[in-house]
This record gives sequence, C-alpha cells and structure tokens, in this order.
Amino acid sequence: MIELRSDTFTLPTDSMRAAITQAVLGDDVYGEDPTVRRLEELAASICGKENSCLMPSGTMANLVALLVHCPRGFKALVGNESDIYIYEAGGASVCGSIMYEPIPTQPDGSLLISDLAAAMPEERDDPQYALPALLCLENTHNRCGGVVLDPTYLRRAAAFAHEQQMNIHLDGARIFHAATALRVGVAELVHEMDSLQFCLSKGLAAPIGSMLVGSRSFIEQARRMRKMLGGGMRQAGIIAAAGLVALEQMTDRLEEDHRHARLFAERLAEWPEIAITLKNVQTNIVLFKVIHERFTSKTVIEAAHQRGLNLSELGHGNIRAVFHYGITEKNVEQALEIISGLLHTTNQG
Amino acid sequence: MIELRSDTFTLPTDSMRAAITQAVLGDDVYGEDPTVRRLEELAASICGKENSCLMPSGTMANLVALLVHCPRGFKALVGNESDIYIYEAGGASVCGSIMYEPIPTQPDGSLLISDLAAAMPEERDDPQYALPALLCLENTHNRCGGVVLDPTYLRRAAAFAHEQQMNIHLDGARIFHAATALRVGVAELVHEMDSLQFCLSKGLAAPIGSMLVGSRSFIEQARRMRKMLGGGMRQAGIIAAAGLVALEQMTDRLEEDHRHARLFAERLAEWPEIAITLKNVQTNIVLFKVIHERFTSKTVIEAAHQRGLNLSELGHGNIRAVFHYGITEKNVEQALEIISGLLHTTNQG
Amino acid sequence: MIELRSDTFTLPTDSMRAAITQAVLGDDVYGEDPTVRRLEELAASICGKENSCLMPSGTMANLVALLVHCPRGFKALVGNESDIYIYEAGGASVCGSIMYEPIPTQPDGSLLISDLAAAMPEERDDPQYALPALLCLENTHNRCGGVVLDPTYLRRAAAFAHEQQMNIHLDGARIFHAATALRVGVAELVHEMDSLQFCLSKGLAAPIGSMLVGSRSFIEQARRMRKMLGGGMRQAGIIAAAGLVALEQMTDRLEEDHRHARLFAERLAEWPEIAITLKNVQTNIVLFKVIHERFTSKTVIEAAHQRGLNLSELGHGNIRAVFHYGITEKNVEQALEIISGLLHTTNQG
Amino acid sequence: MIELRSDTFTLPTDSMRAAITQAVLGDDVYGEDPTVRRLEELAASICGKENSCLMPSGTMANLVALLVHCPRGFKALVGNESDIYIYEAGGASVCGSIMYEPIPTQPDGSLLISDLAAAMPEERDDPQYALPALLCLENTHNRCGGVVLDPTYLRRAAAFAHEQQMNIHLDGARIFHAATALRVGVAELVHEMDSLQFCLSKGLAAPIGSMLVGSRSFIEQARRMRKMLGGGMRQAGIIAAAGLVALEQMTDRLEEDHRHARLFAERLAEWPEIAITLKNVQTNIVLFKVIHERFTSKTVIEAAHQRGLNLSELGHGNIRAVFHYGITEKNVEQALEIISGLLHTTNQG
Repeated sequence: MIELRSDTFTLPTDSMRAAITQAVLGDDVYGEDPTVRRLEELAASICGKENSCLMPSGTMANLVALLVHCPRGFKALVGNESDIYIYEAGGASVCGSIMYEPIPTQPDGSLLISDLAAAMPEERDDPQYALPALLCLENTHNRCGGVVLDPTYLRRAAAFAHEQQMNIHLDGARIFHAATALRVGVAELVHEMDSLQFCLSKGLAAPIGSMLVGSRSFIEQARRMRKMLGGGMRQAGIIAAAGLVALEQMTDRLEEDHRHARLFAERLAEWPEIAITLKNVQTNIVLFKVIHERFTSKTVIEAAHQRGLNLSELGHGNIRAVFHYGITEKNVEQALEIISGLLHTTNQG
Repeated sequence: MIELRSDTFTLPTDSMRAAITQAVLGDDVYGEDPTVRRLEELAASICGKENSCLMPSGTMANLVALLVHCPRGFKALVGNESDIYIYEAGGASVCGSIMYEPIPTQPDGSLLISDLAAAMPEERDDPQYALPALLCLENTHNRCGGVVLDPTYLRRAAAFAHEQQMNIHLDGARIFHAATALRVGVAELVHEMDSLQFCLSKGLAAPIGSMLVGSRSFIEQARRMRKMLGGGMRQAGIIAAAGLVALEQMTDRLEEDHRHARLFAERLAEWPEIAITLKNVQTNIVLFKVIHERFTSKTVIEAAHQRGLNLSELGHGNIRAVFHYGITEKNVEQALEIISGLLHTTNQG
Repeated sequence: MIELRSDTFTLPTDSMRAAITQAVLGDDVYGEDPTVRRLEELAASICGKENSCLMPSGTMANLVALLVHCPRGFKALVGNESDIYIYEAGGASVCGSIMYEPIPTQPDGSLLISDLAAAMPEERDDPQYALPALLCLENTHNRCGGVVLDPTYLRRAAAFAHEQQMNIHLDGARIFHAATALRVGVAELVHEMDSLQFCLSKGLAAPIGSMLVGSRSFIEQARRMRKMLGGGMRQAGIIAAAGLVALEQMTDRLEEDHRHARLFAERLAEWPEIAITLKNVQTNIVLFKVIHERFTSKTVIEAAHQRGLNLSELGHGNIRAVFHYGITEKNVEQALEIISGLLHTTNQG
Repeated sequence: MIELRSDTFTLPTDSMRAAITQAVLGDDVYGEDPTVRRLEELAASICGKENSCLMPSGTMANLVALLVHCPRGFKALVGNESDIYIYEAGGASVCGSIMYEPIPTQPDGSLLISDLAAAMPEERDDPQYALPALLCLENTHNRCGGVVLDPTYLRRAAAFAHEQQMNIHLDGARIFHAATALRVGVAELVHEMDSLQFCLSKGLAAPIGSMLVGSRSFIEQARRMRKMLGGGMRQAGIIAAAGLVALEQMTDRLEEDHRHARLFAERLAEWPEIAITLKNVQTNIVLFKVIHERFTSKTVIEAAHQRGLNLSELGHGNIRAVFHYGITEKNVEQALEIISGLLHTTNQG
C-alpha cells in the first residue's frame, strides 16, 4: 500500500528506534528527564527562541499557546481554513473560554491585513466586544496545499498584531518544509513570532510529539497549562530520543519529498481530468480535483484504495496526496499509474 | 436633542410608570411574583409557545438560549454580522464552552443554506470536529439595517437545522417590527423556531427586560441557567408590569416608526452625497453613508450631535438612525434639516 | 400570612414606588442613566470605595467579583457554608473556569486563618497546583444565622490574604445588618476588602438589585463582565430609584428587625422543645431546631404554614426565621403563638 | 541514589525497551496502530469492561472521565485528600465547567456515605444548586499512604452514587497494588465502577501512559475529549508496546514492593523519633513523621538526600517513601541506615 493520506503515517527510522532503546530517562513531570531537556534546548535553539516544551501532540501545543496568550473571554484571530479552527475540536473555547474569530484565508495561506483590521473592535473600552489577544498563522498551510508564508508577510502580520496589542503564534506543524522551500533557516523564518509549534511526527518521522517554542516566561506558563491538560508525561525521554534524531537527521531530506510532490503534481497536471494549481505545490502536499462525470473525490479515493494507493479528502472536493519519508520516486510512479489506470479503466467500464 | 442612535433610548410611557406603581409583587426567585407570571404567560401565548422567562437583557436571553441548546464543546452557527456574534462579548465561549462558527450574512439578513451546509463536519464521528448543535438567526436584522426574514426563509432554515440535528434559535430583539412589516402574527412568524427572545425595551419602550420563549422543558432549563448567571431578580414585577403594558399597548404603533424611517430614507436618497439602499429600509432602522470628501461617518455624527441630532455608527462606515416611540414626524423633518444643513454649511466652510 | 422565610420577600415602600415613577431615566448600557449614576456614587461613598456598579442580583455581583479577581484556572477560597459556595450554582466554575476551595466555616461565620494557610499550595511553581487568587467572606453570615464578622477578624483575614497574593471579596448581602449590630459605619467595616457586594433588596426593601463596590479599575473590569453575563440593563434607573431610597431611608430601621429577632429567639429559647444558640442571634435571622419525636423541621414548617406563618429550612435540620420591613412586633407575637400552638396541639393529638 | 520519592521514577525494563524497538506501529489518531489496539483490548479485558483508551497521563485520564461524566455546571464529589482534587490543577473546572465538591477523606481512604449524602442538594429542581453527576474514589489512596478500599466499600459507595443519579469513577492509578493487597482480581474489584483509570507508569514501570476504562459508549466519548485536549498521539504504539509488557509481566511482582514497604515501616516504627501508623502500610507507600526538636520534614528530606536517599513530602508534615521496581531489599536496608544515621549524627551535632 502506498500511503499518501498524510505524513502523519511516517514510521520511525532505525536510528530513532535505536535511540529510544538507549535513551537516558528520568521523570519529566519532575523536570528530570535529561533526554527531554536536550530536545527542548535543541528545539529552542533551532528556532532562535529562549525555551521550548515537549507536547504529546500539535493539537495540545496549539491549545496551550492559545491558553497562555489569551485570557478568558478574549478572542483569537485564526484563518477560517486553518487546522486550529477546523480540526482541533474547539479546544480553545472549551478549555480556555476563548472566542475564535475566523478570518478569510487567501489561496496563498495568508490572511489579509485589511481583514485583520476589520476584526478589531470599534472601541476597546466598550464592554460589548470581546477583545483580540492573539493572531494565529499556519506555515506551511495544510488546507491550502502546503503553501509557504514568506518572511516578508510574516513580518508584516507580526507588526500589525503587535500594534494592536496582540501576540502572534505560528502553527508551524510543517515549518521545516517552509524553511526548506524558502531556503532560509527556521530561526530567521519565525523571528517575529511570539510562539510557534512544530511537529516531530509528520515529515520528520518521529513517532510522537510536538515542540512548543517561545520565551522563557511563555514556556513556564505553558508547562503549567500542559500539566492541567494532562500532557505531562513521565519517562518522556522515549519520545524525545526519537525527536532528537528527527531534528538532527531528518530535516535535510525534506527536499526529496518536495521533489516527489512536484513530480507527482506536474504529471497529474498533464491529464485533462485533473484540476490542479501547480504554483501552489510548494512543499510536500499536492491538492487536486478529478473533473469527471463518473467520479466524485470520494469514489476516486475508494477506487485508488482498492488498487493500493491511499489518498485523502481535504474539504471543498479536494483530494490530498502527501509525500514523506518512506515514499520513494518509484512509489510516485506507481501512484500515478494507479490513478491513470482507474481513470482509464473506469472510462471503459 | 433628537435621539436616533438607538431605540434602546425609548423612555417608559405614563401607563408603564403607573403600572409599575400599582404592580402586585412577590419574590420571583421563589417563583411568587404574580406580575411576572402574567407577563411570562402572555409572552408565550403571543409567540405560540409553551412557556417563557423574563430576562434582565437580550444579551442574557441569547446567552441562556445558547447554553441550553449547546452542550460544552459543541458549536453554534451564527451570522458573521449578527449581534450575537459581534456585540455579546463572546459570552457563549466564556460561560458555555461553545464555539461560534460565523456564517457570511447576506444583505437581506439571511444565511445561505449552502453556507450552512459547508459548516457541517465532514464526518460526525471524527473527534477532531466540534459538532454543530444550534443555528441562530436574527429578525429583524440590526446590522443589515432592520431587514426582515420572511416565513418562507425561516421555514427552510429550520428544516435544514433540524435535518442536521441542530436546534434553531431566533434573536428576535425586534420581532414585532418584523411581524408588523410582514403583516403576520408573531406566532406564525416564529412557528418553526425552537426558541426565540424578544426585547420589551427597544421599540416596545419598556425600561428593562427581554423574554426568552420556548417549550416547557427548554424554559425550565433556561431558568436554571438564568439563576447561575445571576439573572434571577426579586420583585421583578416592577419590570414585568411595564412589560405587560409594552405587549398590550405598544406593538400596534410600530407602523408609525416604520413610516418615519421610510420618510427619512426616501428624502436622504434624493441627495447626491448620500448612499443608501432603499429596498433594505423595511422597518425602523435606516443605514446610510455620506459620500463626501470632507466627511467620514465619524465627523458627520459629531457635526450632527453639535446641532442636536444623535446618530450612531454601525460598522463598515454605515451611519444608523433608528426611529422609535417619542420620535415624531416633526422630529424626522428636523433631523433631515440638520443633516442637510451640515452637509451644505460644511461645503461652504 | 406572616412571611419569615426570608427578607427577600420585602415589598418596596411607598417612597420607593414614588421614586420609581418620577425617576429621570436614560440608557444605562450607554452609561447615560443619571439615576443609576447617582446610586453608584452613593453606594461607593457609603462603602468608602472609589466606584460601584449596579447588578440585577447578588448572585451576579458575587460572580462578577470572582471573574474579575480570579484568572482562568485559579482558585477561590470560600466558606463551605457560604451562600457563594452553596446557593450560586457553581457559576464561577462554569463562567470563570475557577476552582472553588471550600474552607470549614466556624459557628461564628469566620474561616480559621490556619485553615486558609493549609489551603495554600506547597510550592507555587509546581504546575500541579491551582493557585489561590481570592478569599471570600460573608458578613453577616446567612447559614450561621446572621452572625457578624467584626473588624478585627476582617483585618486579620485581609492581611493573610494579601500576604498570600490573594484579594479579598466580601459577600455583604446583609452588610448593613452587620454595621448596625457592631455600631460602626459600613466604610470602616469593609476598609480592608478589595471588593464587596451588598443587596438593595433583602433588608433594605428595594425590589431588585445589588451593588458591587471596589476600586475604579476593579469596577471598570466588572462592567465588562456584567455586559458579558447579560446584566447590562437599559433604563435601569427604575431599579436605582428604589435603591437610592433604600440607602437613604431604610438602613436606620434595621435595629428594629434585630430587636424583633431577639425577642422571637429569647421566647423560643424558653421552650424545652426548641434548640437555639442565643449568642448567635446577632441580627435579623433566627435559626432554631425543634427537638420533638413527632416533628421534623419539614413538618414544623408545613404545620406553621397551615396556620399562617412561613418559615424556611436552612440545612442541617435548621429552621430559619428572618425579620424584616413589614414585620411588626405584633407579628412576632403571632408567630410565637402559632409555633406554640402547633407544638402544643400536636402534643395532644 | 536510592529513589523513594515516587514510583513514577521507575525505569522501563529491558523487555519494554525491546518491545518498543520491535513494535508494529500505525497512526493511532486514525485508529490504525495495532499495538495500541492490543493494549486497549487487554486493559479492558483485565478490568472486565467493554473498552479502554490509552492516555498520555493519569491526569488526562481522570480529566477526560470527569468531562464525559459531568455536563457543564454539574458537580463532582471528590475526596478532599484525593490526587484529583489536589494535584490536577483544577482541570475539571477549567476545561469542563465542573464544580469540585471535596468530601472529607477518612484515614482509610474512604468517604463516608453520610458525608456524601450531606452533599446532595436539598431540592434538585431548585436552580440555585449545582447538581451532582459523579463520585470519584481513589484506590489505593495516595495521600492516605497507599491504603486500600475493599470491594464491600466500593459496592456501597457505588450503590449510593447510582441511587443519586451519579456515576462513579475510580482513580485507580495504583489499582494493581490494591488488587494485590486484597488478593482479588482487578475486574472483581472495579466491577461496580462506571469508569476507572490506571497507570502503566508508576508501579508497573512503563515509561508513559494511563488507561481509561469503561463501557463502549463511555470510551467513544472519551476519545472525543482526548482529541480536544491534545492527547491523541500518532505512532502511540511505542508507548503501548511497553504498556503491554507492563500488564503482562509486571503485576505479579508488586507483592515484593509491598514486602519492602512493610519491612521499612516496621523497622521505622521501632524508633522513638518516628510516628507511623503501621496498619495503614498496606501496599507500596510508607508515610511517616519524624518527631524531633531539631528536624522538620523538610530538613529530614534534605539530609537524607545528602546521604543518597530521596524521600518526598506529602502534606500535613508527612514524609513519603514509595517502593517500586528497581528497589531491592538491600536498598531498603540502606535507606533505613541512612535515616538512622542522620537522626543519630544530628543528635550528636
């Protein structure tokens, strides 16, 4: 089975398994797991921030960031197509008494500064308005097909946020993909962010974990929120050991995934039944539609699955293919053949 | 001063003051205020529902409705231009752990069924989605300029909501205006609604209070929420006494306010500096813009205030004038003169 | 019917009704009701604080105080027999994400400083502990039978709270009773409190309303919370007009209620079937038990009701009688006769 | 260093490390990790329940249980000395809008049925009361020194809870210790519980994880809550692999820890400076006090630490020693010598 539903399906490398076996462990709830400490220092340093904190998931990393940045009753501006808004079960309203204010997402993954400005309350002193405390961006942007926000935009958005007394948090689940595509360092890319999270799982292939990164005092508060949510884990070094390998060995190879995605997309684009926006294929994700009287995205996905290829749906009728560690160029060819085959065969049938 | 900022500025009538003085009172927290009981029965009966509950404000009435209809972690679909979403301080997220999902509001105050459909989760069993529990509509619609949702649309929206396992709540702060404009009874107009609230203050001129209306079991739960929020009041009969007068004596005269609004709007529409959509002037609210190089909506409002006319801003650069009890046809003429005068004088200046 | 269930049953005086009729009104949601303004200034001044805010109920006044003093996830120390803990539906946990920590209430209404100290977290930096942000006291104390906390205790409790980085809020629903019993001014009595609320209804006989009192910045935040909860009311001057009369005319007569309570209690204490702690009868509340094989507190209350006397239950088998405006010395004699009669008659039967 | 602060310091066994290395993995957020599935089936089966769910911590397992059992605004009855109440940061109030009602904990770890009964609202229909939805017990009971609740008590408590329309949840972080001490199976011991959680870490020595166990529908809802809190983890099989070894290989050896605790306690009890309640040493935890003019619990712990023995404080001046995998009988002797030595030396000094 060629697994392109998501890069969350990546399996740990042999080095990761070995690192787990040999990890020096302690009780991280007491702050005594040396492997976790090493990972937290490394992650902070890569991002050019003061400190970081291991989380069991990106969902918790984002939720904790929202809880720390937004007092009860404040609002967080999020993209209406962002994972935070759509796929995280409303956690900030439930756990944080925070109001989400979704802002239209542009096809390039950005939120227009004018749209952000329109979400500012007409008068801050008027108690009928929930006040904005946070702006969240996503880089790369999942539901826009892995598009990259560049440093110029991030700088402008951060400047706007800070003028308006908001902090800015980056959902950087796939920030290494963005850095790879832009050929800049992660630290440079996230320089203006007050906090960010990135995933050790997904493209970096670690089995579990996300890093929440920010200032010393932000992370101190984040640890408090993490404990309350139940994200404090005992010998978390078994997760961190793989995370260290992810950061040390797995970021350089992301270009390969991008190349595979590009290859896949360009070939699809040649077929008349396929609608695809090639300029948005910037990293490891490919979104496309099948324009065909006898197919819906659902039936394409089912037919592909029958033939050994897993694809996923991603809203608005889009089909998503994600390229990652474990997927070879040969797999790309096979995937293309499967899709070609099913379009062709079904035409016959 | 001609007060057109809002109909919330209406003062109680002499009959209301007299009714308050003579009201038979009891402790309504114990359910023993006979005047409140009478009002709650009358309000329910006018709306064709089983029961109702007096609230200190429309904000609390809407909040309680959201709390009763939506369990923790569910989402409420609301218009992105609705008062519930914009002017009620995020109360449902704070007090209810409810996620707001704003849906684009059409100029006629409606939410497109296709937009509602797009907000349904792709798969209810997938725990990453907050599930929808409630659809809220607003009739008449304040920020769209008092436009009216008709029974046909309400029926379609309710049918969609119920198919999708959602309840439907109507913010009917000005529902009597809608009924007046449509020449239907309130009961007919809200027949498909699972709950609604309307204001005794605003156009009906009572000093305080809103009624939350629904089924017997809904209202029972609403009383519990009201107590928790601190909306249970002791000798609330002093509020209810005026509310009874509002319902008995003040609904028939709303046509007069609509006529005044129409008159005001039509005259404004003749002036080149004014942008106004006449077809949206359906009840007692008039939205307009001044298109003039030396004016912003803010400076128009300030200049009018200097000359004895109070207007308000309502987002998107709109100026709002609201017509209500206490505003005479003569006042309408005076208001027009003031606006004309300031546009003209300033042109000279 | 002699109504001793609660002083919440007091009906407004004729002066109050007249004041309501003549009140100058405005829209208080816009901060433009002059009668409300006057009341808020008077209440603040009586309490020796900077500002105050009219609330529809004591429940909301306490809830708002908790919301302002306690950030999300902090805890409030409250008496385990306090009205805030028992009778306010858990509002601070629901609306504020605040944890209640109930502290044993002493028979004199106080919380031991040693018990408060035991509730402090062993280590503030340890994220497993919810941190304390607020201490709440109640004066007079309802479920302890209207006992009074004196200035010395209040000073010590406030000192402890402030040492521990907590604010202190006073539920002073009946603070004028405490001041009357102690023969001190309210301002002196609440000097160390960071905030307090007192009721205009109850003993002061106004139909509706409580005042939340504190510093300028506290009240500013409180207005924001009040709006969110739905406690902002339009022509609230109709409530405030009666509240002004309450503060100007009704505080001096509370001694009469205390005298009635004392008279009632002393006579009850002479009867062998009655258990009562006379030293706790300090204000307008009398708690007692009937020790009788054929009676429970419930059946006593029912039998008294049959004979024209309303009493209430108050937990732990206590029967409560509350003396207030409208209850004369003659009523006290009648109430005693009714109780005597039913104890005697039933003995026969 | 002899580590007796907690059994959370246990390190994974070699079999666990090997199992992690060889684990078959999948994306558990998609429900596709076969190792997690196996663990969840095994845990459910051991507890005699329908289903179970892997959690990153016991804190989250308890929090999720509270969220599922208690709607917004309901209250959970918890022991005032329970870990849920003291060490879990108020999560149920923050994330669940749930009110904690702490009930006095007896020295044997139980809550008196009469105390539970006193916490029932006088009248369920009265909206001023938060309604009880859940009773939580803890077995073995940490802060009572590892004491065991027996099946008879659990049955009675569950019967009371169910009569009162409450569910009952067991914090069974150390339930295998209870089962070992009682010589009953876990399934028998938790038969009446509606849900329970137990830790794979702690005594069972797995590095990470707790199992939440209950009915099929309970666990379905729990998975939803887990996702919202951020407890869904990708290749969670690396945690589950060790958890399977914990359940298969580590429960039988707990008797050894109990023997060590007993040995340690009995020897301490012989010394005049030690206050200890031997009958409460029932499992792997020993609580004791040093009664000595020159020592506080804090200084004893510091002095022991200097000499190579880690102990912890546990409230009320208690010192806690916890025996677990990795602590040998020789370590017990060494620990006793260290304590003896420091008491003796300091006497000299």
